[in-house]
Amino acid sequence: METREEVMFFDTDCGAVVHNIAYLRMIETCRTRLAAKMGMDLNSMAETQVYPVVARTEIDYKQPAKLGDWITIKGRLGEIGKARFWCHFEMIRESDESLLVSARQSLALVRMPQGKPLRLPSEWAQKWGAQA
Amino acid sequence: METREEVMFFDTDCGAVVHNIAYLRMIETCRTRLAAKMGMDLNSMAETQVYPVVARTEIDYKQPAKLGDWITIKGRLGEIGKARFWCHFEMIRESDESLLVSARQSLALVRMPQGKPLRLPSEWAQKWGAQA
Amino acid sequence: METREEVMFFDTDCGAVVHNIAYLRMIETCRTRLAAKMGMDLNSMAETQVYPVVARTEIDYKQPAKLGDWITIKGRLGEIGKARFWCHFEMIRESDESLLVSARQSLALVRMPQGKPLRLPSEWAQKWGAQA
Amino acid sequence: METREEVMFFDTDCGAVVHNIAYLRMIETCRTRLAAKMGMDLNSMAETQVYPVVARTEIDYKQPAKLGDWITIKGRLGEIGKARFWCHFEMIRESDESLLVSARQSLALVRMPQGKPLRLPSEWAQKWGAQA
Repeated sequence: METREEVMFFDTDCGAVVHNIAYLRMIETCRTRLAAKMGMDLNSMAETQVYPVVARTEIDYKQPAKLGDWITIKGRLGEIGKARFWCHFEMIRESDESLLVSARQSLALVRMPQGKPLRLPSEWAQKWGAQA
Repeated sequence: METREEVMFFDTDCGAVVHNIAYLRMIETCRTRLAAKMGMDLNSMAETQVYPVVARTEIDYKQPAKLGDWITIKGRLGEIGKARFWCHFEMIRESDESLLVSARQSLALVRMPQGKPLRLPSEWAQKWGAQA
Repeated sequence: METREEVMFFDTDCGAVVHNIAYLRMIETCRTRLAAKMGMDLNSMAETQVYPVVARTEIDYKQPAKLGDWITIKGRLGEIGKARFWCHFEMIRESDESLLVSARQSLALVRMPQGKPLRLPSEWAQKWGAQA
Repeated sequence: METREEVMFFDTDCGAVVHNIAYLRMIETCRTRLAAKMGMDLNSMAETQVYPVVARTEIDYKQPAKLGDWITIKGRLGEIGKARFWCHFEMIRESDESLLVSARQSLALVRMPQGKPLRLPSEWAQKWGAQA
């Protein structure tokens, strides 16, 4: 899954570069579209109240993006366990193809509002495992 | 009601001043504490599912705040109608007492998740009207 | 200028609707693209250090958007004065064409980092005035 | 260093819990105050243009916070290397002392706007190493 973002003022801080938190918002948009491709679109979630919830984030900031940069965010599914799965992300500045950020997030499926963690569907490993 | 905020990196943008959206987050914190004083604390809201919802915001940006500035946000209740009430805000830089932002917001009480607007409690005008 | 946004988790709050501040981020993206069409693209700004700065925002929240909604943000240039110009925005839910938000913002051109306000280019009224 | 935050609407999402990105804003406030104690206050940074920049974040989301929760954020300095140092954070809900989030961030000192990484001051390891 690839998404694109143009760096806006609200993404930057007074160090003249993109603020470290803003990258995570961009990653969430990519992750949401990735989840939609896996059958977890936002409207279904709102109905079933089953949401993928981030359990852990690891993110490396390698090069800073600047105002007006176009960034491609590449997201893909990684390891799939019984209750957790991982998503991997790379953020690349389009003008010079430099790697700005690499990140991975582990997620669980939980039923809200109780926050009850669910087993991952058994077909996932088969269906999506090849992507890892 | 007065709240205080120290300008953080995430509040600023690459123009080296506080981003216009960040002031509204600071105002919301002040407004939330003002509401708590009126009996609408966050825990009660979560239980009753009755929330004050912003219907309109008017905000004037007069002077920019910078990284490290301490800001006092002064919020007070204004006009109280049948279904809407107004809150007024001033944001002042503590170091030189300059007025950074003035704003007002009209709010309605709604019952969630239906979003049904409620009449304001009749005692409000009496109880809080003097502040306007 | 029209931009589109899909409502993400980070746009919503626990009232199950889009948070009032999130709409302003969406408006800023629309406004930035509108400015680019007028010759003020983000890269030029970063070079010239001349930025359009929001002086006032008026925003009416009419209907709430929900997770997964697609929103069209329509922005256009309004009145052009000597030192201030206005932009007008409407946010429309695509599924039912309901008007969610209407807003207008007045902006000034300032040279950073001094924050010095500039006169608007005299050709603007002629060139862009017809849109108002 | 301990800071406190009350969970506001803008911190939550429609899953009725605090959004994963909001915790990072709270951590940044704690980290900023920790840096100030080490002599890197925001005003000095704005003058020297030397900033601590996050190079990596690892964050584990253990329990969700809810609207109105008061959270204590505990930050402390960890390992100090030649060019990187680590900060460790725990976020604890005050009402039941449950651990919500644990995180660590590695930071580098960079001179802006060039983004040039600097060696850490040699006295840091001696002065602050004991905290790790």
